[in-house]
Amino acid sequence: MTRSVDLNSDMGEGFGPWQMGDDAALLDIVTSANIACGFHAGDPDVMARTMQIAHEKGVGIGAHPGFADLKGFGRRRLPIAHEELANAVAYQLGAAQAMARRAGGRVRHLKLHGALANMASEDAELARVCYQAALDVDPDIVIMVLAATAMESTVRELGCNWAGEIFADRAYEDDATLVDRRKPGAVLHDAQTAAKRILGMLDAGAIIAESGKHIPCRIDTICLHGDTPDAVAMAREIRQHLTAAGVELAPL
Amino acid sequence: MTRSVDLNSDMGEGFGPWQMGDDAALLDIVTSANIACGFHAGDPDVMARTMQIAHEKGVGIGAHPGFADLKGFGRRRLPIAHEELANAVAYQLGAAQAMARRAGGRVRHLKLHGALANMASEDAELARVCYQAALDVDPDIVIMVLAATAMESTVRELGCNWAGEIFADRAYEDDATLVDRRKPGAVLHDAQTAAKRILGMLDAGAIIAESGKHIPCRIDTICLHGDTPDAVAMAREIRQHLTAAGVELAPL
Amino acid sequence: MTRSVDLNSDMGEGFGPWQMGDDAALLDIVTSANIACGFHAGDPDVMARTMQIAHEKGVGIGAHPGFADLKGFGRRRLPIAHEELANAVAYQLGAAQAMARRAGGRVRHLKLHGALANMASEDAELARVCYQAALDVDPDIVIMVLAATAMESTVRELGCNWAGEIFADRAYEDDATLVDRRKPGAVLHDAQTAAKRILGMLDAGAIIAESGKHIPCRIDTICLHGDTPDAVAMAREIRQHLTAAGVELAPL
Amino acid sequence: MTRSVDLNSDMGEGFGPWQMGDDAALLDIVTSANIACGFHAGDPDVMARTMQIAHEKGVGIGAHPGFADLKGFGRRRLPIAHEELANAVAYQLGAAQAMARRAGGRVRHLKLHGALANMASEDAELARVCYQAALDVDPDIVIMVLAATAMESTVRELGCNWAGEIFADRAYEDDATLVDRRKPGAVLHDAQTAAKRILGMLDAGAIIAESGKHIPCRIDTICLHGDTPDAVAMAREIRQHLTAAGVELAPL
Repeated sequence: MTRSVDLNSDMGEGFGPWQMGDDAALLDIVTSANIACGFHAGDPDVMARTMQIAHEKGVGIGAHPGFADLKGFGRRRLPIAHEELANAVAYQLGAAQAMARRAGGRVRHLKLHGALANMASEDAELARVCYQAALDVDPDIVIMVLAATAMESTVRELGCNWAGEIFADRAYEDDATLVDRRKPGAVLHDAQTAAKRILGMLDAGAIIAESGKHIPCRIDTICLHGDTPDAVAMAREIRQHLTAAGVELAPL
Repeated sequence: MTRSVDLNSDMGEGFGPWQMGDDAALLDIVTSANIACGFHAGDPDVMARTMQIAHEKGVGIGAHPGFADLKGFGRRRLPIAHEELANAVAYQLGAAQAMARRAGGRVRHLKLHGALANMASEDAELARVCYQAALDVDPDIVIMVLAATAMESTVRELGCNWAGEIFADRAYEDDATLVDRRKPGAVLHDAQTAAKRILGMLDAGAIIAESGKHIPCRIDTICLHGDTPDAVAMAREIRQHLTAAGVELAPL
Repeated sequence: MTRSVDLNSDMGEGFGPWQMGDDAALLDIVTSANIACGFHAGDPDVMARTMQIAHEKGVGIGAHPGFADLKGFGRRRLPIAHEELANAVAYQLGAAQAMARRAGGRVRHLKLHGALANMASEDAELARVCYQAALDVDPDIVIMVLAATAMESTVRELGCNWAGEIFADRAYEDDATLVDRRKPGAVLHDAQTAAKRILGMLDAGAIIAESGKHIPCRIDTICLHGDTPDAVAMAREIRQHLTAAGVELAPL
Repeated sequence: MTRSVDLNSDMGEGFGPWQMGDDAALLDIVTSANIACGFHAGDPDVMARTMQIAHEKGVGIGAHPGFADLKGFGRRRLPIAHEELANAVAYQLGAAQAMARRAGGRVRHLKLHGALANMASEDAELARVCYQAALDVDPDIVIMVLAATAMESTVRELGCNWAGEIFADRAYEDDATLVDRRKPGAVLHDAQTAAKRILGMLDAGAIIAESGKHIPCRIDTICLHGDTPDAVAMAREIRQHLTAAGVELAPL
């Protein structure tokens, strides 16, 4: 049996004169790029440049909509009405589709960003509002969800294309939520350990919590971080470990 | 011979708590709506509401991109690099397409707003950059151009779908530019006079300048203003005069 | 005994091309103007114009800082860290001071706007953070607080200059909070009734709740609304009733 | 004779999640900090942090207002009406004053940023509008001007406190404008050469153009760049060369 998985990372997170992360390096590592759409980060020029390179390297282009909160980088939980959220997701997805088309490609997946993602992972109704808005715009789009959360139950109900995601470098609680960053062991800093754990989960078809508990779920894609030089180096190593172990890396 | 023409107006120009114009009234008058895309006015919610009503009333939905200048309402000539402009137009068009799709419709035309339109009417290269960006996103989109300007020569060269536009209430110079607002007679305030002049131009297939000079051009659509209650009333009257004279009003 | 009270209203709430309210009319009615500072509404030009007229008419100039949320008009409760809030209040107050100085006047009071005010009326620590930031910038500034709320206890503890405020047109619960707008009688629509109620409260030195309960508090200023033509007309009438009853209207 | 000069650098140019430059390092090198005010860069939190450190290190705090153009970093020449510019400068200065006061310090100087500075160096009327607005807010503020430009003639006419500035690392034309960056030798990359040239200018009391021509002017401060690690290293070396040559470094 060949194990196959997608590797994704957030990118296109600069804005105007400001840079963030090393997108060029990341685009040699991942198979899917979650590209900011101008609300929490990114601007049309950053989007154009990032999508151009992604397209050239065969990396799958994803829309990565977030709250309209540049200053807070989309990491603050904003009390936005559901209809307004739906409009914000549709707007950002449409903008991303246009930029992708200009780059010769197309938007194939959508992943919510930051606080919006956290809220949707806990609140199925909010997830449904966001995802339905995206599906209204493109019924074939692949929705990337945090595996075994309210996001997953929502896409299953919607009956749409979706991909289940786990984090490469985070420990899990027994209920599939992430272990609090402040606890020891919550964040893995060693690529080999991370890769071994990922392989275990891929083989098990389950998130394996810190306690050892198995939470069966579909694992289609692994989220890698790239916001620091160390993170990029670790992402590259994880990829090497996975391919060395015979895992096929393939876009969604 | 049946004379047929489209009536268009800018709308969706509120933002957050702020209103502008009476879109509901205008949507009973025009056959095409140029809807702001969030850069100079409009936000995703305003776009959604405006497109919803336009779609219900059978009014053609147009994207109306402008400079990213809310405070200046897109009326200031910004020194934006061509590639940045292209990205800004594509981004706004894409966003508009998504919002239209959610409303059950689609974006059928594109008209540049404010200072960006003024600049493109004088600078064929700038017009080409903006229009090519739009065509990269949708090769079938109808580009609305100020008749007999650099915009028109540009769309003719591009070989794309386009519509020539004249103003209902503005006097023209012999070179097809508008008579300066500060000159007497530059702006028409009487609907009957305006309608008579439009009929004359439609019959002549030409802009008729103040001097009487004919500037042959394609006239597909008439721009009506709706930013004041008076403007809306005058737009309604112009429509009545045109239909009374047997002109068929039809979307592009 | 002469009864004396200040009348205040929010204003300067336009932005760029967008108007809101009839500030010129309001400035003939109130004795204190709470002027938006550019974060939830207002821009430097709106501020300059509003302060110019306020100064000419002898109306007290107040800074009216809110959340940085133009689209939501500062009416959404944003999860902002305390230190960030303090900086936002100081920044807005400083900007207002400079604009007031250019207009020949000075900022004499500060009133929090919208959701920020609602939150501070319930959370003394948050009120303290905002007020201390303002006092760091100007130790003599008058803090306008919702009477008998956490805001009032906070300014009493801070020992600063302050003014207690009641609403002209809202009914009160027994705990000094406002009766929910959706309940009948929650909002007064008749100027005479409103004026009579205000006079009763001034005489009693207390908020008089709907139940008749008296909540003793200092009443220095009455909040009038001016966001609709009806509201402006009612504000004018309330002023007339108060002066007819011998109340002296005087800035803080 | 003791030669004495101020060293200044732009800083506080991050925004929300984005960093720019190494302010902490620069604040050990310069004696004056030009701190962005939130329009082209900076936000209240960045301002607060930067001013706090500047104050602790005894570095003079300056307001560095620019065009309201985050995406363009204030480097685009915007067609803003004079009164609007005056309001924008006053607003930013006031905000900076409040932030400085909270940090325990005060704004002592003002330097225009980017395109606004370039325009004011060529257009005395525009310079006057901006500087008068600042003086309306603080009549004692020190205006930092590009030596021997329209800025300098403007402050001389205004009779205000001012400081003449030269660049540490740029070659000058015979009319005191900078040699175009694209020409060889336009930008100095060696600290020793730069320091030697600065010493020559300080001794001559003149800008010494590439041709050798002397343009007499008051040189009160030297502009150092800090936007790259190399720039910071060079700034540090220039400082060392100047102090080794007996130049006293002192805030304005």
